[in-house]
Amino acid sequence: MENKKYVYLFSEGDASMKNLLGGKGANLAEMTNLGIPVPQGFTVTTEACNKYYEDGKVISQGVLDQIYEKMAELEKITGKKFGSKENPLLVSVRSGARVSMPGMMDTILNLGLNDETVEVMSNLTKNPRFAYDSYRRFIQMFSDVVMGVEKRKFEDKLEAMKEKKGVKFDTELDANDLKELVKEFKALYKEELGKDFPADPKEQLIESIKAVFRSWDNPRAIVYRRLNDIPGDWGTAVNVQQMVFGNKGATSGTGVAFSRNPSTGEKKIFAEYLMNAQGEDVVAGIRTPAPIEKLKEDMPEIYKEFMDIVNKLEDHYRDMQDMEFTIEEGKLYFLQTRNGKRTAQAALKIAVDLVEEKMLTKEEAILKVEPKQLDTLLHPAFDAKELKAVTPIAKGLPASPGAACGKIAFTAEEAKERHEKGEKVVLVRLETSPEDIEGMIAAEGILTVRGGMTSHAAVVARGMGACCVAGCEAIKVNEEKRTVEADGKVYTDKDYLSLDGTTGNVYGTAINTVEPEISGHFEIFMKWADEIRKLKVRTNADTPRDAAQAVKFGAEGIGLCRTEHMFFAEDRIPAVREMIVAKTEEQRRKALAKLLPMQREDFAGIYEAMEGRSVTIRLLDPPLHEFLPTDEEDIRDLAKEMGMTFDELKATIESLHEFNPMMGHRGCRLAVSYPEIAEMQARAIIEAAIDVKQRKGYDIVPEIMIPLVGEIKELKYVKDVVVETAEKVLKEKGIEMKYMVGTMIEIPRAALTADEIAKEAEFFSFGTNDLTQMTFGFSRDDAGKFLKDYYEKRIYEFDPFAKLDQTGVGQLVKMAAEKGRATRPNIKLGICGEHGGDPSSVEFCHNVGLNYVSCSPFRVPLARLAAAQAQVKNKR
Amino acid sequence: MENKKYVYLFSEGDASMKNLLGGKGANLAEMTNLGIPVPQGFTVTTEACNKYYEDGKVISQGVLDQIYEKMAELEKITGKKFGSKENPLLVSVRSGARVSMPGMMDTILNLGLNDETVEVMSNLTKNPRFAYDSYRRFIQMFSDVVMGVEKRKFEDKLEAMKEKKGVKFDTELDANDLKELVKEFKALYKEELGKDFPADPKEQLIESIKAVFRSWDNPRAIVYRRLNDIPGDWGTAVNVQQMVFGNKGATSGTGVAFSRNPSTGEKKIFAEYLMNAQGEDVVAGIRTPAPIEKLKEDMPEIYKEFMDIVNKLEDHYRDMQDMEFTIEEGKLYFLQTRNGKRTAQAALKIAVDLVEEKMLTKEEAILKVEPKQLDTLLHPAFDAKELKAVTPIAKGLPASPGAACGKIAFTAEEAKERHEKGEKVVLVRLETSPEDIEGMIAAEGILTVRGGMTSHAAVVARGMGACCVAGCEAIKVNEEKRTVEADGKVYTDKDYLSLDGTTGNVYGTAINTVEPEISGHFEIFMKWADEIRKLKVRTNADTPRDAAQAVKFGAEGIGLCRTEHMFFAEDRIPAVREMIVAKTEEQRRKALAKLLPMQREDFAGIYEAMEGRSVTIRLLDPPLHEFLPTDEEDIRDLAKEMGMTFDELKATIESLHEFNPMMGHRGCRLAVSYPEIAEMQARAIIEAAIDVKQRKGYDIVPEIMIPLVGEIKELKYVKDVVVETAEKVLKEKGIEMKYMVGTMIEIPRAALTADEIAKEAEFFSFGTNDLTQMTFGFSRDDAGKFLKDYYEKRIYEFDPFAKLDQTGVGQLVKMAAEKGRATRPNIKLGICGEHGGDPSSVEFCHNVGLNYVSCSPFRVPLARLAAAQAQVKNKR
Repeated sequence: MENKKYVYLFSEGDASMKNLLGGKGANLAEMTNLGIPVPQGFTVTTEACNKYYEDGKVISQGVLDQIYEKMAELEKITGKKFGSKENPLLVSVRSGARVSMPGMMDTILNLGLNDETVEVMSNLTKNPRFAYDSYRRFIQMFSDVVMGVEKRKFEDKLEAMKEKKGVKFDTELDANDLKELVKEFKALYKEELGKDFPADPKEQLIESIKAVFRSWDNPRAIVYRRLNDIPGDWGTAVNVQQMVFGNKGATSGTGVAFSRNPSTGEKKIFAEYLMNAQGEDVVAGIRTPAPIEKLKEDMPEIYKEFMDIVNKLEDHYRDMQDMEFTIEEGKLYFLQTRNGKRTAQAALKIAVDLVEEKMLTKEEAILKVEPKQLDTLLHPAFDAKELKAVTPIAKGLPASPGAACGKIAFTAEEAKERHEKGEKVVLVRLETSPEDIEGMIAAEGILTVRGGMTSHAAVVARGMGACCVAGCEAIKVNEEKRTVEADGKVYTDKDYLSLDGTTGNVYGTAINTVEPEISGHFEIFMKWADEIRKLKVRTNADTPRDAAQAVKFGAEGIGLCRTEHMFFAEDRIPAVREMIVAKTEEQRRKALAKLLPMQREDFAGIYEAMEGRSVTIRLLDPPLHEFLPTDEEDIRDLAKEMGMTFDELKATIESLHEFNPMMGHRGCRLAVSYPEIAEMQARAIIEAAIDVKQRKGYDIVPEIMIPLVGEIKELKYVKDVVVETAEKVLKEKGIEMKYMVGTMIEIPRAALTADEIAKEAEFFSFGTNDLTQMTFGFSRDDAGKFLKDYYEKRIYEFDPFAKLDQTGVGQLVKMAAEKGRATRPNIKLGICGEHGGDPSSVEFCHNVGLNYVSCSPFRVPLARLAAAQAQVKNKR
Repeated sequence: MENKKYVYLFSEGDASMKNLLGGKGANLAEMTNLGIPVPQGFTVTTEACNKYYEDGKVISQGVLDQIYEKMAELEKITGKKFGSKENPLLVSVRSGARVSMPGMMDTILNLGLNDETVEVMSNLTKNPRFAYDSYRRFIQMFSDVVMGVEKRKFEDKLEAMKEKKGVKFDTELDANDLKELVKEFKALYKEELGKDFPADPKEQLIESIKAVFRSWDNPRAIVYRRLNDIPGDWGTAVNVQQMVFGNKGATSGTGVAFSRNPSTGEKKIFAEYLMNAQGEDVVAGIRTPAPIEKLKEDMPEIYKEFMDIVNKLEDHYRDMQDMEFTIEEGKLYFLQTRNGKRTAQAALKIAVDLVEEKMLTKEEAILKVEPKQLDTLLHPAFDAKELKAVTPIAKGLPASPGAACGKIAFTAEEAKERHEKGEKVVLVRLETSPEDIEGMIAAEGILTVRGGMTSHAAVVARGMGACCVAGCEAIKVNEEKRTVEADGKVYTDKDYLSLDGTTGNVYGTAINTVEPEISGHFEIFMKWADEIRKLKVRTNADTPRDAAQAVKFGAEGIGLCRTEHMFFAEDRIPAVREMIVAKTEEQRRKALAKLLPMQREDFAGIYEAMEGRSVTIRLLDPPLHEFLPTDEEDIRDLAKEMGMTFDELKATIESLHEFNPMMGHRGCRLAVSYPEIAEMQARAIIEAAIDVKQRKGYDIVPEIMIPLVGEIKELKYVKDVVVETAEKVLKEKGIEMKYMVGTMIEIPRAALTADEIAKEAEFFSFGTNDLTQMTFGFSRDDAGKFLKDYYEKRIYEFDPFAKLDQTGVGQLVKMAAEKGRATRPNIKLGICGEHGGDPSSVEFCHNVGLNYVSCSPFRVPLARLAAAQAQVKNKR
């Protein structure tokens, strides 16, 4: 039955077995093979974890048998015996998933101790203080980590004991104090859990292993996995390792080491240690660790051995290593090694240095930087020192990275006005809408109460590279009273808020921000990425400013220019509204004639900024009611302006009401009803292109994109209008110019009939935002309410609006790409949804053979790197 | 270039060439082959029509050449010459599509006449009156039909002439009067069109052919095609036929004939004729035609020949024929024949008779009745005589067939109250919502201003078999003033309206209705259909009443029982609302406990009504806010009832607001958030099944359906809740019972991942309403606004919510069926969208191999017939 091997000795594995043994287990095996002094042990596999869940949260007898079997082998290796009254084997139990995951279970040390073995240890080591110190630590860790008794309760008892003894550090407590403490701890355990602390080492071990398995599914772990694209079925391994003791006295100690500086990337070993301590003491920060250089003076031989091993490990793994080590009575042990986490700056420097040191090829180096890390290089951050001194008053979604600080503004208009007077403001809204755009530009950052990672605020902010915290339901905004309430305090427009768009934290005070520094390594590294990648990277940009920004970040064109964003500008909205409320085609044409020169100017600005790079302009997309006011007063004003009665205008607005605006009269459906709108836009695009071509000499090939197509005849109808207009303009100007007409693929039916649609479309751009909505059948504005239940219940493990759902939506993308190419082999394929800026989605786009991804300007570097990584991974 | 043959002499075709020559053309060819006396001519093909459109509404030179060529051959056959001053050939021009289509161009007779040829005709026939009568008719027809000059203007002149001459019938006008009239007609033509009436017969001919082509695309034709599922690319043919004259004097005449009675189906030739007349006179109704029996007396030889030909044609076509004939100076001609249109009663009788007469097999007979016709057999209709006396005041969509008459009620409550007092009311609403359900049941019929064929009103009315006219925008309803305005008149709650749900007509007066009579032929015919079909037919029913009705109509089970409809009942809604506003699981469970016995009773009633047939019950589907009140007063009342403050309740309601409710928190998403709802429903279902099984002995296998699934884990989560509950109930009762858990496939992602989903789902039911919405990306509540533009512009030719879109949505259905069967070969597949009652969609379901379709009770016979037809057609 249980033929499968679920438990491996360290000596039975190697670094390639990460998926099975977890990162920690695989590296312990690898170090063992390399001859590095590693306390031996065994790893219970990730498959055992999955089996535990499949079996209904039970460790099967077969797996238990394998654990006991390997424990027996470990006893042979160490010459000690688990639970023995003569020479007891103590072990540590640690979780170890395929990738390192915060939120997983903490380590349990000194497992195997009980009232008998502690005495044996005491006698064997002639160090009762050490024995009882280890025992009280074990009871505390087991109680907290395995049984869920609050840690604080044990710490209170430790504090009370120190106070009673009048000492400052726990190292100053003696064996008797600790013995007393053990009694108190065990009493506390019984009080809290109604049973005795388990004396049987086997029970201690199995309960600890179960606790590791359980921790795979705790809420923190689930959230972390979702944010980091880690599938729930990876599971975690468990490492059981012989204890070595850094707390055995003056020649013992423990520490952590990095083979290079994890903050700066400097090529210099960076390590700290603490004598007479166990691991947790280093992290706890009660005693200050010593720099590794001190070891050179105190224990020069150990120091040399240490340096040799660190260098050996870095050479072996060809990456910066993060290690834990322990010195037990003058003997050095390494407890783990892994590729070290590092800042973005450090990551770039290390990657570039490793290539220059000939440790890595450029292709390999490309994989050493997380694309998402680049974000932090492009946005301001809070002053790290100041940040340490404050705690957040609320936490929302990290919707758009960066840091922002300003006084509270409650409306977009207010933000704009106060900004113009030189004040720094953050815009706080329940949610934003397209009307708020100017206020959002004026604000340092945006904070919304509602809405998710792809809400209006989030999308627009990312587009602008502005800091945004969205969906921060922990704050209460009273727009009437002009107050923000959070964490029991009330803030007004005189108060500062600081927003961290990278973490989602909101602070109730002013914190200084520091501008990002882009090092020379960034340029070198990104150049390599560009050399390697096949996938082009374009940007979504609606203004010359955004376009120029994106070019600076390496954008090779515009994949999506949303014309409607221009319609909201103060000088255009009256004409837009006039067009919407028009009752006849004639009236509508009159209003459109007013918009034409403005649209032409918009497009000319963008063509200039892009200096001849490709620009895809999408025809008007949103439902028209979005442009009309909703509250009575505004309607009254507009009616006056339009020369209509209030009732008339109100009736018009009501007639435009839609039950499901997302699935209403929008996209090319507008152009089918009012072809004159498409006509005006096509004219503006071609005239602008001609103008810039003539003035600047760029070779412009306008790409006109028809949105929301679901049927070829629909596309043909609008395309005919566009082509007829374009030809007319070219004839008027007596000029020849190539132009392309294509479509968004964002309706499932468009993907399903892409072979037909490609007969008319010269390019496809996958609008994966809408395609995701339609494919899943939920609106991104509404899904926030129930998706949290889905995450909690492990139904969805990631936000399909942030990361492309390859199973469902991806199937449609792939199908459409294939069908499109079958009809028109040279069809240009791109993606312009939010997913264009998500690394795993970029990889997917590369794999299905798209020509480009398009993302917001600040995500362009990320997409460039992700595209290069996709190419490297794909080649392998 | 123009190698293709675009024009066929009658002698070159046959009946099998309907697609190319149109129905009329193919039959003229067939009659020619049969040796029946047919005036000869030629047919311009449907391909020429399509070419005309492709070429930009131009008849190409190649096609023109072929027309002239065939005209020359016709001249040889007839021995006359087109436009000749000696023996002029006159022709008629008629449209003729693949199927007969009202709304297409009227006939043009006597083409070829001008000031010269009319004189030649006059001399040749020695009948100047006849010649000028023909000429004035031609001018009028050409002016009206080809050039669009109003017919009325010519008729006014004819009337004036008759008045001037003091005569009653135009037959009383003499040659000089008619000559004078021709002058006046030509003057009128010039006045209206600014040019002379065309004297060139070739110009007359080509303009007439073009007019036929144009008429293919007129709005009436487009609407007719959409309602009757006729593709726009079929095109129409044009028949050019030598004239024979029924108006040549006392031995000439014209008439129409049916080989059997088209109203009753009686096997007896039914024909009428008029002497000295042209075709239009018979239809115009100015003179009363004589029954064919009179011909036996007047022209016994002609009568015998006529009877022989009619019988020959019926024998040849093996169906009831509808024919036109003309007697020219004692010689009989047949001008056309076709399978005759007939009432539903007649269709059934004829089909059954033809089998008994051994003319047809049962399989062939099955194809002789239009499934949609059956509708009229099941619903009341207006008294035909009364109907003739009234004209409609408005026309809406024929949303649910039948006839209804009652006084106007403006709210559902009012309808209910007045109905209870014994008054007959029709419910008139802007649109209906689930809250109106009781009023809809109480009303005789339902009239809505907004909403399409699949609006709430339409769907519910069809389900109940109630008459409904929807989307009647021609009326204005003022709910406050309690008035309905239509056609310039105001109606109040004291006035009667009569609704015809079969035509969409609304009458401003009371008209008596007559109950339908179901003949024995219906039983025989439907039995044949049942013997033939493979596809099962179930019904959508939510109440025992509907269920019993459907069983009477032959339903073999319930494919969709919507539990939410039960939630709106007066005695349940308080508990439903209590459940929705509950703040904790405990509160929610308390409210659910109140609902449990009611739901159990609902289900028990349905199980009893179905007598052991399969019943699929769907778990709660709509978003919860649908159950909450929206206006202030109702909220205030409910708050009191619930013991909440107004503000509290209002905030709760607002928090449930959704931007796109169609894509919001509904379906199984509710059960994921609140598993206790699914628990209660599963318990109610199983307990009811056990109860009825024990009391009645039926072998019940409950089918529990989980809606709106898009991901297997989501289904599994809810299924686990259902199965756990079911097992618990069975254990409590100590009973064994099989039950099935399946899912709707109504989200594109469910179709795309159907192989995965089938691992958990024991059956699939395609919810093609939602699947259509998501696949097209438009909401059926909003699409009405723009789909009319799509129909006008020939982008869509039918309503995808009424007829399944086989290209897009059908692709997903097919894919899901294949994937589902790949995983679970015996998976049960059905459809429960509105499409289950549409014949072409039923055929599609048969072809992709579904096990059953489910439709509203009154559509069950239709679906049974459509399923049989699909089987017959598929076999061929």
